[in-house]
Amino acid sequence: MDKSIKTAGLLVIGDEILSGRTRDTNTNTIAAKLTAMGVTLREAKTVPDEVDIIVAAVREYAGRFDYVFTTGGIGPTHDDRTAQAVAQAFDTPLVRNDDAWERLARHYNGAENINDGRARMANIPQGATLIDNPVSAAPGFIIGNVHVMAGVPHIMAAMLDNVLPTLQGGDVVLSRSVWAPVGESYLAQALVDAEARYQGVSIGSYPRFTPEGPSVAIVARGVDAAQLDAAIADIAKAMEKLGVTPVFE
Amino acid sequence: MDKSIKTAGLLVIGDEILSGRTRDTNTNTIAAKLTAMGVTLREAKTVPDEVDIIVAAVREYAGRFDYVFTTGGIGPTHDDRTAQAVAQAFDTPLVRNDDAWERLARHYNGAENINDGRARMANIPQGATLIDNPVSAAPGFIIGNVHVMAGVPHIMAAMLDNVLPTLQGGDVVLSRSVWAPVGESYLAQALVDAEARYQGVSIGSYPRFTPEGPSVAIVARGVDAAQLDAAIADIAKAMEKLGVTPVFE
Repeated sequence: MDKSIKTAGLLVIGDEILSGRTRDTNTNTIAAKLTAMGVTLREAKTVPDEVDIIVAAVREYAGRFDYVFTTGGIGPTHDDRTAQAVAQAFDTPLVRNDDAWERLARHYNGAENINDGRARMANIPQGATLIDNPVSAAPGFIIGNVHVMAGVPHIMAAMLDNVLPTLQGGDVVLSRSVWAPVGESYLAQALVDAEARYQGVSIGSYPRFTPEGPSVAIVARGVDAAQLDAAIADIAKAMEKLGVTPVFE
Repeated sequence: MDKSIKTAGLLVIGDEILSGRTRDTNTNTIAAKLTAMGVTLREAKTVPDEVDIIVAAVREYAGRFDYVFTTGGIGPTHDDRTAQAVAQAFDTPLVRNDDAWERLARHYNGAENINDGRARMANIPQGATLIDNPVSAAPGFIIGNVHVMAGVPHIMAAMLDNVLPTLQGGDVVLSRSVWAPVGESYLAQALVDAEARYQGVSIGSYPRFTPEGPSVAIVARGVDAAQLDAAIADIAKAMEKLGVTPVFE
């Protein structure tokens, strides 16, 4: 990829996603916010709460992408294994972090209320920096290029808002789109032509099926707004030739 | 894993998921249905519409899991690259499938209405068998242990219903759960104890945060219903000791 593009990988950690009990929404939240700031999410992977698997996945992603994000597995119970696995991935011990401990003590109105479960949430890989958790105190953390966040969506979102300003975005990938009530196959050649004509523009075709018949949204993505506008204008013309009215979204 | 457990991997294919434009719901649908029939989804990965990446991912998963499922990228436009990539992964040519062609011709009221885009949807890896698409005709396909399905959720769901009866499930992983209005950390030790006592039972702890305060759902999973019931009964007792009333979900 272009060197001005910053890449990211996301690890969603949790048996509950893979069993179908819980529907992941964090991927979409993270994907949209990264895209908006010029970081391209290249891959997202959901893995179970198993230390060896998490260790391997963290190592793989840390080597492949500029930024790695994880969600899930940093709570107070035995099935929360992410901190331990990330420490292992970085060959560093998991140790009680004094700052994290203080945050928990404040949140729970005194260190005497930090039971064994809560104490686990102060165990952070040595050398990591903390990610503030304004909702429930127990912090996430950053080690190397890996950003470890909670799995509960509103806590993850709050942590992500604290992480984003620390990232260096690349060129922001913009998008333009146009919609029409026509089957996407009729536009296939126009899309190929536009992608060939406007270098650096990538075009996606997203069909919808409704009782009124098929329709399609065409999305052009790239870093050059003028190129995108030109590509979408070409496609809108192709829609008009098919006798339908393009709607710019 | 236990040999009686059948495993699966899922590839979600599409730039629109990674850009945040579209929220994936297929993973949850597939995960829940596989779980119900005794197939364990071990990993799910979202990859972009790039042939080389899809080829590598299909090969990796085909070797690692009993069953592989893919969603997305089998439509009529240039950005639909899954069929080509799967053919490449199996070192087999992508050829016009007569049966698929007939289905499209019927659906579009005659072969003369199969434009170039639609014709692409009849190109299937040699040696694959078709998956019926009762919604929009263009079929999915099965080659080796790889099941290639559409990305549009209601079409994917219809294809999945046609695929499930062809799978051989293993022991069905059952679940039992109990809920209480208490912070999960107070149950941490009880969960560890129950998992140690009931071999083959895996216990997950899923906190919720509401204005009324924290609560937690404890989920026990395993193939032996009696063991699960006993584990959940132990945890309910631990909840009662904390002065809260367990609610069986």
